[in-house]
Amino acid sequence: MRATIMHAPGDVRVEDRDKPTIQKPTDAVIKLAAACVCGSDLWPYRGADKISRPVPMGHEYVGVVEEVGADVKNVTPGQFVVGSFIASDNTCEICRSGYQSGCVHRQGVSGSQAEYLRVPLADGTLVATPGIPDADKVPSLLAASDVLGTGWFAAKAAQVGPGKTVAVVGDGAVGLLGVLAARQMGAERIIAMSRHTDRQALAREFGATDIVVERGDAGVKKIKELTGGLGAHSVLEAVGTQESMLQAIHATRAGGHVGFVGVSHDVSLPGRDLFSSHVHLHGGPAPVRQYLPDLIDLILRGDINPGKVFDLELPLEQAAEAYKAMDERRAIKVLLRP
Amino acid sequence: MRATIMHAPGDVRVEDRDKPTIQKPTDAVIKLAAACVCGSDLWPYRGADKISRPVPMGHEYVGVVEEVGADVKNVTPGQFVVGSFIASDNTCEICRSGYQSGCVHRQGVSGSQAEYLRVPLADGTLVATPGIPDADKVPSLLAASDVLGTGWFAAKAAQVGPGKTVAVVGDGAVGLLGVLAARQMGAERIIAMSRHTDRQALAREFGATDIVVERGDAGVKKIKELTGGLGAHSVLEAVGTQESMLQAIHATRAGGHVGFVGVSHDVSLPGRDLFSSHVHLHGGPAPVRQYLPDLIDLILRGDINPGKVFDLELPLEQAAEAYKAMDERRAIKVLLRP
Repeated sequence: MRATIMHAPGDVRVEDRDKPTIQKPTDAVIKLAAACVCGSDLWPYRGADKISRPVPMGHEYVGVVEEVGADVKNVTPGQFVVGSFIASDNTCEICRSGYQSGCVHRQGVSGSQAEYLRVPLADGTLVATPGIPDADKVPSLLAASDVLGTGWFAAKAAQVGPGKTVAVVGDGAVGLLGVLAARQMGAERIIAMSRHTDRQALAREFGATDIVVERGDAGVKKIKELTGGLGAHSVLEAVGTQESMLQAIHATRAGGHVGFVGVSHDVSLPGRDLFSSHVHLHGGPAPVRQYLPDLIDLILRGDINPGKVFDLELPLEQAAEAYKAMDERRAIKVLLRP
Repeated sequence: MRATIMHAPGDVRVEDRDKPTIQKPTDAVIKLAAACVCGSDLWPYRGADKISRPVPMGHEYVGVVEEVGADVKNVTPGQFVVGSFIASDNTCEICRSGYQSGCVHRQGVSGSQAEYLRVPLADGTLVATPGIPDADKVPSLLAASDVLGTGWFAAKAAQVGPGKTVAVVGDGAVGLLGVLAARQMGAERIIAMSRHTDRQALAREFGATDIVVERGDAGVKKIKELTGGLGAHSVLEAVGTQESMLQAIHATRAGGHVGFVGVSHDVSLPGRDLFSSHVHLHGGPAPVRQYLPDLIDLILRGDINPGKVFDLELPLEQAAEAYKAMDERRAIKVLLRP
């Protein structure tokens, strides 16, 4: 099969690889209907994460079950499924508390920018749609697999709800879908922080009521001005840098909530800032599995259209161009067709 | 009047000072019934906080109202009152949300290790008891002013509740009263981390079900062993160092809650630890004012006896000895009689 491999920063190639097979009785193999490039894939692409050997890329996926291991009972070949980027048993105490991404048996899923993918712990990880979805729903279902689920978790972690003022730090796909999530959860006011007009437009379409173009301390000052000097009730952080984390913490009012989902890079939070800010801080890898059934319903009912974050679509063979377009910010998120 | 002044690390003196007077129409002056030394007073005493000029010490207080400013309506001369170490208007949006210690008009209160104390924003800050309390209730009411209120907030911030396993990092007065708070909030299991037999005994008396003597990584390992490998649901942090914060975060299960109230000193939290731990982190200066009415009720009904943390009582004149005894860990907390 054809698969996307990263050999070094900036060096992404589509190559022939063995088609994955069932390795454990709890595995499934799925034929991918669509794949995509994640903002977090840009960390190694830009050299911020080390690559010691060629890495099969991709952790977002939707597709049709091709084969299942002997112990798999919840999904069967022929079903269309959506899964999370972290495989989980969905039965342990941590999963049952809603933190499937912290499952005691968790495993990362990787290699989905390809034709086929092996998914471990298939019973706990995959959620089947009712029937094969229409083609126009596939991008949104793919978004549910990570960026939507992650933006949703950021909003949940930030305790978004009716009557609240929400600020979103980061205008990548996750940040934009954090805006969509905040809207769905009834936020009164949603401030998107973005300096890119195309992303500002999508943020508004997803429900942003205000746009702040300033960043860092100037961005914090602006949020304070918009909130009577107090700061937002809920701030979603979807970048993962020191600047974005401090921006999020400082833009939150005393007693407010920060939901952070940007994969942390060189972040070191001063205890005094946390102590004096009085914010609630919660985040990490999103427990997407928890939200999948509800997100799939919202998508199939047509209530939300998160697939709009895909502003470029390419054949799998052009994966290198997909990375380039996202790295150069020519595209928000690229969908790949195997 | 006589007042306790810190001149330099290790140099505490009781001296003559002018009796405080009403400076603003929202002030009150109270005649102190009892005062005490706080664990946080030991930071400057030990040289960890800088002292640039002589500082009147003390921020915990109970006493009788001596005089009020023209705008004060909620308390009157002759009433016995308890107040928080942070003065708050108790009317702003932040106060109304329960974060009086983040009040937009907040002011620190200091100088309570003395005969008299000026309290700003008296209407929002002071809570009168019904009548003059019996002498045996005074130490507990004094504890409510800070250490009990702070331990209570740590437990609230850590979302302690029925069925939960709670761990407490720090065996000072705040940690011990965090144990008491966790017990009051219905925790199923309370693990106190302490290596001092006298503090272990008080922790057990306050409701601890288990004692862990190990610290740091060894302490975390022990908590994991006691919780089926998962970590505690709720961890209270009452020290304020890098080691204690990481110990608290690492001892908490995915999705669990850390309530931190130790005044941060040289703490810098690695983003990766926070990201991967999946904990909720919340803390800061406790909004004691929020809890005072309930805490006063619990104390006067005899349901709790937090005054037991005072294991040494000295006349105000011996304040220097009080600091020394706490610094050398000969006393958990010292009550001073003006």
